[in-house]
Amino acid sequence: MSTVDRSLVKNLPLFAGLAPADLDEMLQEAQSIRYPKGSSVFQQDEEAHSFFVLLHGHLRVMKLTPDGQQVVVRFVTPGEMFGIAMAMGRATYPATAMAVVDSIALVWPSTIWPRLIAKHPALAVNTLQTVGSRLQDAHTRVVEMSTEQVERRVAHALLRLAQQAGRKVEAGVQIDFPISRQDVAEMTGTTLHTVSRILSAWEEQGLVEGGRQRIMIREPHKLLLIAEGTLD
Amino acid sequence: MSTVDRSLVKNLPLFAGLAPADLDEMLQEAQSIRYPKGSSVFQQDEEAHSFFVLLHGHLRVMKLTPDGQQVVVRFVTPGEMFGIAMAMGRATYPATAMAVVDSIALVWPSTIWPRLIAKHPALAVNTLQTVGSRLQDAHTRVVEMSTEQVERRVAHALLRLAQQAGRKVEAGVQIDFPISRQDVAEMTGTTLHTVSRILSAWEEQGLVEGGRQRIMIREPHKLLLIAEGTLD
Repeated sequence: MSTVDRSLVKNLPLFAGLAPADLDEMLQEAQSIRYPKGSSVFQQDEEAHSFFVLLHGHLRVMKLTPDGQQVVVRFVTPGEMFGIAMAMGRATYPATAMAVVDSIALVWPSTIWPRLIAKHPALAVNTLQTVGSRLQDAHTRVVEMSTEQVERRVAHALLRLAQQAGRKVEAGVQIDFPISRQDVAEMTGTTLHTVSRILSAWEEQGLVEGGRQRIMIREPHKLLLIAEGTLD
Repeated sequence: MSTVDRSLVKNLPLFAGLAPADLDEMLQEAQSIRYPKGSSVFQQDEEAHSFFVLLHGHLRVMKLTPDGQQVVVRFVTPGEMFGIAMAMGRATYPATAMAVVDSIALVWPSTIWPRLIAKHPALAVNTLQTVGSRLQDAHTRVVEMSTEQVERRVAHALLRLAQQAGRKVEAGVQIDFPISRQDVAEMTGTTLHTVSRILSAWEEQGLVEGGRQRIMIREPHKLLLIAEGTLD
């Protein structure tokens, strides 16, 4: 636990429009907490005690069904808010967040949210934009699952990961955190078997390059053609 | 176009926490517009010029894919906000909204949104809860599409419609607006053929009752067992 310097976070979308003094005041109420790789930040159905901004690392957010099936909701990258269940009118977290690498987050108690937004309306406006863009993402996913064959969905999922957390390297775009074929299956509503078959075929064609929990996209343009259904 | 009486809308969730004088002021900036059955309120990709509250009727919100496939995003029932693309940071509407029966909405120009929420922070808080609950619905749908067989998804879709717009009648729960089998197909990511097969079987078993653009649920409890996967 330590106070966070304003310079680390002042450019985050969440804090846009906040005066420096207001941001300092808000940061004084935050804790900075480390989450070792593999640990959970919060659990589905647990009381939504805190809200968070990820400073470093990557998280996987996943929902478990009553009959034990798991779906990846999204990955959280640095700079993003998460765990804002309480701001959305929920008393509990709708999903589990787990660190896929060693991660650090700013943590505020949920109880101060009403006071924070009453004092800093820009926070509510910024949060609304964040939640709105997640809603668009979720609807895009519903549309893809409703209308697209699985190969196109997998291509879309990889392109979104590349956009969210892609790092340009010599051979292409590296997705910058550990991601498994099982993760991709849980992001696209298909089975590990199907994802393995698709990725192996793409590897043979030189489109992507796999590895232990690593995915690199060698030919983003060709993957885009597959996603759009214009290349088989 | 006419001024709307506060008593009509003061109990809507959007306006919770607003002082009567503030609500009156906000209503003075609204137009009340009629949308005849079958007309569109706005079109996907059109500039997001206005935001709305539905006063009367029902709307279908749908997304069209580049290759011409259609997906029902949701139905809007009286009291709900819709078309709030601009509040979510978008310049255009992400979907098309069409009146499925004669409908009436309050309409505000999007340009006044920043001023309204600066003046009435409760609006942003309430909108955040609305968008948050839609995000939960969308994630629930993603989870269902990822993990459930189509029969369970159709059962879930009908139960949600009943909850949102169900009217208790002697024989069961009537979904209170015109809804076609094609709509149900577009809500569950399956084909008209499959929905027809499922609904016909349920009709034979006395679970639901169909009709021209009408669905009545005769046995909500049995439908829930199907949705939960505990009855085949």
